[in-house]
Amino acid sequence: MNKIKRVAIIGGTHGNELTGIYLVKKFDRTPELMVRSNFETIALLANPQACKTGTRYIDIDLNRCFLHQDLENPNLSSYEAKRAKELYHILGSQNGHQQDLIVDLHSTTANMGLTLILASQHLFNLQLAAHLTSVYPNLKILVSEVENQDSPLLISISELGCTVEVGAVAQGVLDASLFQETEALITTILDWVEAYNQGTISPVKHSLTIYDRIQAIDYPRTESGEIEAMIHPRLQFRDYEPLNPGDPMFLTFDGESIAYAGKSTVYPIFINEAAYYEKGIAMYFTQKKIVIS
Amino acid sequence: MNKIKRVAIIGGTHGNELTGIYLVKKFDRTPELMVRSNFETIALLANPQACKTGTRYIDIDLNRCFLHQDLENPNLSSYEAKRAKELYHILGSQNGHQQDLIVDLHSTTANMGLTLILASQHLFNLQLAAHLTSVYPNLKILVSEVENQDSPLLISISELGCTVEVGAVAQGVLDASLFQETEALITTILDWVEAYNQGTISPVKHSLTIYDRIQAIDYPRTESGEIEAMIHPRLQFRDYEPLNPGDPMFLTFDGESIAYAGKSTVYPIFINEAAYYEKGIAMYFTQKKIVIS
Repeated sequence: MNKIKRVAIIGGTHGNELTGIYLVKKFDRTPELMVRSNFETIALLANPQACKTGTRYIDIDLNRCFLHQDLENPNLSSYEAKRAKELYHILGSQNGHQQDLIVDLHSTTANMGLTLILASQHLFNLQLAAHLTSVYPNLKILVSEVENQDSPLLISISELGCTVEVGAVAQGVLDASLFQETEALITTILDWVEAYNQGTISPVKHSLTIYDRIQAIDYPRTESGEIEAMIHPRLQFRDYEPLNPGDPMFLTFDGESIAYAGKSTVYPIFINEAAYYEKGIAMYFTQKKIVIS
Repeated sequence: MNKIKRVAIIGGTHGNELTGIYLVKKFDRTPELMVRSNFETIALLANPQACKTGTRYIDIDLNRCFLHQDLENPNLSSYEAKRAKELYHILGSQNGHQQDLIVDLHSTTANMGLTLILASQHLFNLQLAAHLTSVYPNLKILVSEVENQDSPLLISISELGCTVEVGAVAQGVLDASLFQETEALITTILDWVEAYNQGTISPVKHSLTIYDRIQAIDYPRTESGEIEAMIHPRLQFRDYEPLNPGDPMFLTFDGESIAYAGKSTVYPIFINEAAYYEKGIAMYFTQKKIVIS
C-alpha cells in the first residue's frame, strides 16, 4: 500500500460535541502538536455554523449527508448538504492524488468510554486498531456489518481512518478527562502513521476484539410515535456489556420492565444517546468477535 | 396561613430537560395520580414549543423572563417573553384569589442528585423541605442569598414552592432512575400539602442543612471570550462537596491546573452545567448552613 500523505483530524461534525471542537481549536493554536516527519496533518471543523450555535446541526445531520447520490445532487439546498460537498472536495481521496486518513471526533451521551469506529475493515485499519488497543486496553473497536456499501457518514469519504466516540458526556459539555484521553489517542495515531510510513511498525501479536454493529433498536412507542418506555436502569450506562435473553431493557413510565426477547446474547452500544431519540434508536446491538491479527 | 388551594406541577420550562416533560405527560394521562382531597393540582408544560423542538428555548431562556418589568413590558416580542405573560396569568397568585404552590421540574448535567431550590425561605417552604429531607436523606436544599428581590425565574411567581433539579443527566435524555425519584418526590409533596391543609402535619424535629447560593464562577476565558480551561477532573461531578483553598478547579487545554484561590471552604453546585456555558457560569459557590427547624 502507498504511504499516507495526509491525515485529517475532524471536529465539530456535530456542533454540540465539544471534545472534538476544542481539540481542533487546540491543534489550530499549536499546530506543532500535529507535525510528523513524513506526512501532512490538517485539523478542521466540519460544521462551523453548528459549532457557533452549539447545536448538533443547522438544517440536517451532516453525518448523514455523504451518500454518493446526495454528494452528486445539485438540488440539495440545506446548509449541511452544501457543506458535505465542500468537505468531500477538501478531504476526498477518490481523485487518486493522495491517500488520506480521516479521524472524525465525536462524543456520546452513552457510556462508550473511548471507542474507535473503523471506516472499513481494511488491514491498515485493523493493524492500527490492534496497536491502539495494545496501548489503550480499554479502547473498544467497532465495525459495521455491512461493508463497502454506500454510507452517509463523513468517515466514508476515506477507506482509511475511524470515527472516535467518547462518552458518557452530555451534549454541550467539556469533560477534561475525555478531552485528554482523546488527545492522547490522536497523538498515538499520528505516531503510528509516521512509523507506518517509515516501514518500522511491528505487527501486534495479539487477538483483537471487535464489536460488529448488527441492528438498531427503537424505544417502545405508541401508535402516534410517542416514547412509551425509558432505558431500564439496569441497562443504562452498560454499553458493551452482555445483554442476555430475559434481561431488562426498558422501563415503562408506570414502572413495568420490558425484557430483551432475543435468543442470543448481544452487546448493546449507544444506549440512550440523546441525538438518537429523533432517529428512532434507543441503542444498537452488536456482536462481539475475536480477530486474530 | 391560608390553606393551599392549588398546586401547579410545571415541566418543560426548558424543552431539552426530559424528566419534567415526561412526568407532566404522565400526569396528563393519569390525572388521578395528582388528585388529593383538599386542593386542586394542575400539570402543564411551560414551554411547549421548545419541548417540540427539543431545545432549551426558542428565542430566549424562559426561566429568565419573569422580572416584573418584563412581564409588564408590552414591547417584548420573543416567544418566551409572551409565554411568560401567559404563565403569569395562569399561575400568578398576586391577584389574591388563591394561594398557589408551584413545583418547577428541571434537570441538570451537573451531578446534583435530587435538589430542591426553594422559592423563598418562607416557613412553609422550610417545613416542607424538612419533611422531604426526612423522607429522602440524600435530597439537597438550596436557597439564594438574596431574598425578596425581583427575580427572573418562573418559580418567583409564587412565594411557595420550589424548583426541582435532578442530575447528572444529559440534555435530551431520559434517565429512568431520576424519573422515578422525581415522581416519588412529587407524590410526597402532594401528600404533605394534603396533610398541611388538614392541619395534621407533625413538625419535623431535626436540623435542616441548606446550601446558600452566594456567587457565580465563570470559566477562565481569553480576551475574546473563548474558554481557556475545563472543569478539573477532580472537581467534575463533585457537586455539594467541599472545595478548599488550593484545591484544583480548572484544567487548561495544555494540562495545567488552576486552583481555587478563595480563603474559605465553599460547596460548588451546577458544576459543568451545559446550559450555563453561554451564561458565563462554570459553577455556583454555595455556603453550607444548618437551620434548626
